[in-house]
Amino acid sequence: MTAPVLPESKIDVLIVGAGPAGLFCANGLARAGISVRIIDKSPNKVIAGQADGLQPRTLEVLESYGLAERVLREGTQIHTTVGILPSWKKWRHRTSKQDSERCRLLCAISFRGARVTMHQADIQSVFLDSMASIGLKVDRPVIPVSIEISRNEVELKDPLRYPVKVSLKHLHDEALAEIVHAKFVVGADGAHSWVRKSLGISMEGKQTDTVWGVLDIKPETDFPDIRRKCIIHSLNGTCGVVPRENDMLRLYVQLPNHVIASKEDSRLDISRITPEEILHTTQKMLQPYKMDAQTFHWWTAVRSEPNTDRASTRAANDVVVGRRIAAKYSVHERVFIVGDAGHTHSPNAGQGMNASMNDSHNIIWKMVYVLRGWADMSLLNTYEDERRKYAQDLIKFDRMYSAYVAKKPKPDDHTGSVTQHSLLHGLQTFGDFTSGIGIHYSPSAIVNPTCQSVASGLTIGKRMPPHVFACAADGRPCEIHDLLPADARFKLLIFAGDTMQEAQMQRVCAFADALFHRDAFFRRYGGRDPSSLFDVLLISSASIHTTDHVKLGKTFGLHWSRVFVDDRTMYGHAGGDGYEAYGIDRAAGAAVVARPDGYVGMASPLKSAAELTAYFSNFLLDNLTHARL
Amino acid sequence: MTAPVLPESKIDVLIVGAGPAGLFCANGLARAGISVRIIDKSPNKVIAGQADGLQPRTLEVLESYGLAERVLREGTQIHTTVGILPSWKKWRHRTSKQDSERCRLLCAISFRGARVTMHQADIQSVFLDSMASIGLKVDRPVIPVSIEISRNEVELKDPLRYPVKVSLKHLHDEALAEIVHAKFVVGADGAHSWVRKSLGISMEGKQTDTVWGVLDIKPETDFPDIRRKCIIHSLNGTCGVVPRENDMLRLYVQLPNHVIASKEDSRLDISRITPEEILHTTQKMLQPYKMDAQTFHWWTAVRSEPNTDRASTRAANDVVVGRRIAAKYSVHERVFIVGDAGHTHSPNAGQGMNASMNDSHNIIWKMVYVLRGWADMSLLNTYEDERRKYAQDLIKFDRMYSAYVAKKPKPDDHTGSVTQHSLLHGLQTFGDFTSGIGIHYSPSAIVNPTCQSVASGLTIGKRMPPHVFACAADGRPCEIHDLLPADARFKLLIFAGDTMQEAQMQRVCAFADALFHRDAFFRRYGGRDPSSLFDVLLISSASIHTTDHVKLGKTFGLHWSRVFVDDRTMYGHAGGDGYEAYGIDRAAGAAVVARPDGYVGMASPLKSAAELTAYFSNFLLDNLTHARL
Repeated sequence: MTAPVLPESKIDVLIVGAGPAGLFCANGLARAGISVRIIDKSPNKVIAGQADGLQPRTLEVLESYGLAERVLREGTQIHTTVGILPSWKKWRHRTSKQDSERCRLLCAISFRGARVTMHQADIQSVFLDSMASIGLKVDRPVIPVSIEISRNEVELKDPLRYPVKVSLKHLHDEALAEIVHAKFVVGADGAHSWVRKSLGISMEGKQTDTVWGVLDIKPETDFPDIRRKCIIHSLNGTCGVVPRENDMLRLYVQLPNHVIASKEDSRLDISRITPEEILHTTQKMLQPYKMDAQTFHWWTAVRSEPNTDRASTRAANDVVVGRRIAAKYSVHERVFIVGDAGHTHSPNAGQGMNASMNDSHNIIWKMVYVLRGWADMSLLNTYEDERRKYAQDLIKFDRMYSAYVAKKPKPDDHTGSVTQHSLLHGLQTFGDFTSGIGIHYSPSAIVNPTCQSVASGLTIGKRMPPHVFACAADGRPCEIHDLLPADARFKLLIFAGDTMQEAQMQRVCAFADALFHRDAFFRRYGGRDPSSLFDVLLISSASIHTTDHVKLGKTFGLHWSRVFVDDRTMYGHAGGDGYEAYGIDRAAGAAVVARPDGYVGMASPLKSAAELTAYFSNFLLDNLTHARL
Repeated sequence: MTAPVLPESKIDVLIVGAGPAGLFCANGLARAGISVRIIDKSPNKVIAGQADGLQPRTLEVLESYGLAERVLREGTQIHTTVGILPSWKKWRHRTSKQDSERCRLLCAISFRGARVTMHQADIQSVFLDSMASIGLKVDRPVIPVSIEISRNEVELKDPLRYPVKVSLKHLHDEALAEIVHAKFVVGADGAHSWVRKSLGISMEGKQTDTVWGVLDIKPETDFPDIRRKCIIHSLNGTCGVVPRENDMLRLYVQLPNHVIASKEDSRLDISRITPEEILHTTQKMLQPYKMDAQTFHWWTAVRSEPNTDRASTRAANDVVVGRRIAAKYSVHERVFIVGDAGHTHSPNAGQGMNASMNDSHNIIWKMVYVLRGWADMSLLNTYEDERRKYAQDLIKFDRMYSAYVAKKPKPDDHTGSVTQHSLLHGLQTFGDFTSGIGIHYSPSAIVNPTCQSVASGLTIGKRMPPHVFACAADGRPCEIHDLLPADARFKLLIFAGDTMQEAQMQRVCAFADALFHRDAFFRRYGGRDPSSLFDVLLISSASIHTTDHVKLGKTFGLHWSRVFVDDRTMYGHAGGDGYEAYGIDRAAGAAVVARPDGYVGMASPLKSAAELTAYFSNFLLDNLTHARL
């Protein structure tokens, strides 16, 4: 009997797995006009499941896709992080101004200052609804059964070819088996990734021994910080409190040894860990405050990253542990892994889903550029360089942070291993990392720090910091992040300096001439429509009262709404001192390139377009190549 | 032949006219659960028509109904007002820091500092969509043909009776004639109001002689302030510039005498006024800048308020003039007139539509209270007291402002009748009025300034000023306006003082006891569910680090999200110094009543509930009466 002939089809990108990383990737690619297919083995979208925290940086990224508004409205905003040490008796008498046990700290310098907690199912709905509005749905329940990558070098190097062959099987209907030929495949299929295993990519890393109980309850408590994120270092162990929707709480509780029984190395027997046990442990940590609950809404126990595949709303009997990272993130730059498929870590720092979605954010624009024929295939190398390095940093941080969090204070204040000073210092040091703001990509084809000094307040390789500028024509205050949407365009921010000085205006005009010269990047890589690759914004340091924005806009051929000044708005509510914040000379100015993902790619003085052209020639193809596509 | 028997029906409120005032009223009443019918003579909703500016106060009011977000997104925001004097040559050389001809001024201290221009049709769509979402549509084309008010005193005084009988006629189908019995009728039928005329209410006021051309164009210009609101005092007369959507402009141009020919007193012959003439006049005023247009999108000429009924997109051949006010605003507190039916004025200050919608905002909650049986009929008297007085002030202001705007400067700078100093002074003086923030209702049953001194930074009778407070439990910054929705509830803002001082906490607890005593207003007028009339908010002056919000919330039976502190948020971005801004003693505190429409009704020290009970007993009925309804 011969095998049946399966139907075959072609697609630009096949995404395996519809968790946060896969959905983020599918939505971003589809919105950029790429043909995408996304499959998932589960017959339904997740209804229950663990909530996850969204870091400030992730909120910024979601905003760049127009998705933050809903998340901020529907999620639970967290505005304060509290670190707490023992000597609880003082809590009862907080009239003293000392208040030394409560160190509330700045945990972010970003997007409205908030973090958000939101059910994973609700976060996924945000992406599913956005996809649905452009006609993209998840194919369910569908799994890949085989994957083959062509060994033909010519085929592998040609972005127009389909070198990856994947066989798919429908779990409810065998007749629906088929073969998909894809230009690219993204494995977003979680910690137990089939894609990763099929390609023989190993996971590197080690187990940890600390075991945490995780419990969702609607608390009955008199603990005053219950609506803030808290890290409570008690003499009975450490407890994390994260506020959730509908007055609910998530507790992360360090379990004492007597409740843990380990059967084997990679599995955790939680038959002796019950929600009652987790709550009881919490109660001891929170004394003298009371903490009770009528119902246990969800619970699990973890050594490290919970197994998102198998955790149920009742209990997780089988928990993945380990703080591990995939040996590589791609095969021939044709199959990529994103999210939990590439890295697992502990839930302590609340990084899992954020790291996953930011993997996708990093690769989306690179695939778009290659698929549109604008960039060389080598651009895709930077995905592994940037995101695997970040995952390594994250695991290092996670190890340090988890050790720090799990540390027991000594009964005697200020002499224990965790003191008020070390707590403050720890939260401040870690804040940059846990907020996601600190992500710093190393020098590469797309990160060129050569002229870092012309914008010393920015860090080339980090995300563009937020700041409010005023539209020169109408005085409207504009947050620069609102001007940096994830529209797959490089943003060329021309800080034009003091354009009311005749000499500077001449320099700026000369710079415009250089920019639009046919040998410079703008026309050379922009083809017939440079505005589909490059978005130009002007920001003068002249006063809002005197700037000649009409002339300035005309010099660069820009609409009035694209010319800004670094000045206070009329009401004095916002704006001003942006040049100082970014470390740019108010007289001489500078040009700054923000990548399509919002990270600073390079800076240049306003002397010539040579530096900029050299930067883009690292990875863009000249417009003759465009014509071919 | 006997007349056919017409079908009869009953309705709580019948609204005649579906312009901005009528739609605002219908939406507000329907959202509060009142049964409403709204009719309009026009077969379709307005498609074209004049744009109108929304003042900052109107944006605040729209926000309180949840409608501002769309308006801000779809409208054109105006962030700057510019006053311009002649001696144009200096404009060409604006490198000097003097810049003395351009006085940009703070025009509002309110809602994001912006004004918005928006097509009237688009504004109406905001209300129509909101109404449609709860199943309310406009009956079209329907006109009232007769109106009768019962003379039976008993009937007139009983809010459950239907003393107004209106016959309606369907313009396309005579068979659809009917009789409606209404508890209340609102005449929102414009400057030529049928309701007003039918009830014999006269218009008082006089004509003006200045004639203005109004022209909408997409400008071709090098005038740098074209995206700001400008008042240009030129030697050739005055011109107003208001930015609109799609790079469009509205010009208000003072026409020279030679283009005006008046036929009769109340009609203006504009056969000699052409859009070319208006543009030509503008060009002379704007020299040396150029100003051209390919197309005239809309134009009209006005002495005062344009006739919104008859203006077309091509030309208005028949223009209402005059600055007039209805002799009264209601008949027996059963029929009310709102909007243009009650007052007309010049377009100079851009007040027309704002005043109209705020008429409706003022009467909505009063009708709701009477219809629900919560308030005495006498509450409705305050509508005329407050809004007719405001219209009188507006007309006075309009006269002064129009004269000021029309004043010609002398060629010689700083010696003319309009100088830079007088321009600055004028815009500053008028700003409070033109923004709508300055509306100040006089003492009445619902405005009691007796204890003004306990909140000296507030003005009793003016709207509650915006300020950011921090939620005590989670540190979230909250704009107080977001806590004052137009939900028909009185907001009792308890500024609890320094609750970390034991003595003050005791005073606050004693105040809570007084508040909830069965003889005090809360239980006496609140019936079984006081929270449907009264919304309590607590704002402590204690530090965000030390406040005992759990105890404070419990004292007043409030959810954690209703307890605030007057402190900077964790990020230092917002909040703090609210007690100082409101002029409330940080130690002793005060109680402030915000009316359902956002105006400060009264203030009281935290000594007893007697002052508050006296205030509410002026117009509320005790809960025995509720039971009847």
